Amino acid sequence: MLKPSTLERSCLLRLFLLPATFNGESSVVLTGRDRSYLVDVLRLREGASLTGRDKNGGVWNLTITSITKKILILSAVKDNYARETTDALPESRPRASLVLYQCLPKGRKMDEIVKRATEIGAAAIVPVRSHNCVATGAEEREEAKSARYNALIKEAVQQSGSLVPTALSPTLDVRDVPGDFELRAASFSQGGSAAPSIGLLLHQCRLEERQKSLFEVLDEFLSSEVFREESSPAPLIALLVGPEGGFTDGECAMMLESGFKPVLLKTNILRCETAAVYALAAVQAIAER
Amino acid sequence: MLKPSTLERSCLLRLFLLPATFNGESSVVLTGRDRSYLVDVLRLREGASLTGRDKNGGVWNLTITSITKKILILSAVKDNYARETTDALPESRPRASLVLYQCLPKGRKMDEIVKRATEIGAAAIVPVRSHNCVATGAEEREEAKSARYNALIKEAVQQSGSLVPTALSPTLDVRDVPGDFELRAASFSQGGSAAPSIGLLLHQCRLEERQKSLFEVLDEFLSSEVFREESSPAPLIALLVGPEGGFTDGECAMMLESGFKPVLLKTNILRCETAAVYALAAVQAIAER
Repeated sequence: MLKPSTLERSCLLRLFLLPATFNGESSVVLTGRDRSYLVDVLRLREGASLTGRDKNGGVWNLTITSITKKILILSAVKDNYARETTDALPESRPRASLVLYQCLPKGRKMDEIVKRATEIGAAAIVPVRSHNCVATGAEEREEAKSARYNALIKEAVQQSGSLVPTALSPTLDVRDVPGDFELRAASFSQGGSAAPSIGLLLHQCRLEERQKSLFEVLDEFLSSEVFREESSPAPLIALLVGPEGGFTDGECAMMLESGFKPVLLKTNILRCETAAVYALAAVQAIAER
Repeated sequence: MLKPSTLERSCLLRLFLLPATFNGESSVVLTGRDRSYLVDVLRLREGASLTGRDKNGGVWNLTITSITKKILILSAVKDNYARETTDALPESRPRASLVLYQCLPKGRKMDEIVKRATEIGAAAIVPVRSHNCVATGAEEREEAKSARYNALIKEAVQQSGSLVPTALSPTLDVRDVPGDFELRAASFSQGGSAAPSIGLLLHQCRLEERQKSLFEVLDEFLSSEVFREESSPAPLIALLVGPEGGFTDGECAMMLESGFKPVLLKTNILRCETAAVYALAAVQAIAER
């Protein structure tokens, strides 16, 4: 199983959400959870650079200038590549954190999925290798692929005004996709304590265990006791989407065993790049009610 | 305003849903509404060719061999390009008929939208020209464009196993987009009596009239009196999606005047090709509960 620290530390390039008190000053002082997130979780040190986003959707190039036991100071320089927009920028982060475990499709389709999942505001994208993933022969090096995905993520965050710093994980084998979402949830909430979570296995073949509809599963999950209170933490919803050809029977059995809930989308057979966007959109629209 | 017959007759190339009693015979006899649909609505005559889909998702090349006052006879030849699939084919048409009014985006993005909307099972796709649509200079001829869209639709229907014969309308000016959905609904239900309908204007800028969330608007619409009965007709949900740059204030005012309900998606700023898929997916997932 993947250790949490691997997933968390892969997020070095993600956009850091600047505190609401930040108003374009040339330096930012972080305390508490924000400081702890950069120092203890991401393990960043003095001199490290990261990209930040302010409450208005502005993008900033940040450098850590000093770290003490109580505070952390960042220098902030406005990123001029950030696009001006007249559209209504999102005013808050989405209510649910969406994590997309996407089995690698053929060719460059993953690029499209990375862009669109980021636009929609996925908290994390985890590329997954499974039995039916087609190896392209001339396999692209993992580092080159990550760099390209991260560039696409940065561009999509800027264009979409997303307040979610979409994290990219290294590619996992399907056997290493964690089923223990409860523990995992903490990795994706800044500073974060564990949030209630659910993992959905999207599979368009009939399984022995009855597959519920997306609405049915989410309605049950979101109407549970823990969400009654105002201060309840944002739920984490993980989606596992197959490659062309779907999952093998063995993979389905393994994912159900590890806690994923089987879901059958009440629609036609979708190409895998449509399926990812469809599922993210449907989950978000239902969770944001 | 566009006359119904123009919209209806543009659907000549759409896939005709064969009766449930068809079991691969070399000829099919149609009576009642099915006959009337081809003869009176589509105005097809002896010798006309159309493409059909059987209840198992098989695709058939059909030719009208004779028409009388009571019956119509089709010859049926299996289309061998139909892809075999092990995925679970949809067992029924989706509960809601989705009509996508899509303002033309730049370049070939419309191709992607046509493919994905068909996969998801849109009943009709209507390309729309609005103020912010960018003319590409070397304007493609309408016929060439329609032919390409129809080829993409046919391919997507086959790949997705869709039971919905997605219709393509000629390009409309935004001023000609009909607001009287109640009347319009009949055009998209085979044989069809009018179904309850709603038009949604997707606009990511704030409007004077408060924009509700997609869930809020659909929940209100779908829980109305008319859907209480088992035999209630499938609702028609029309979505109007803007081009890059969105709608002008004047266009918004006009569409609201003609009966569209303003909707703000609770998500980030989406590129228009993502917006169409997002909206269709979210609407379908909510309507199919």
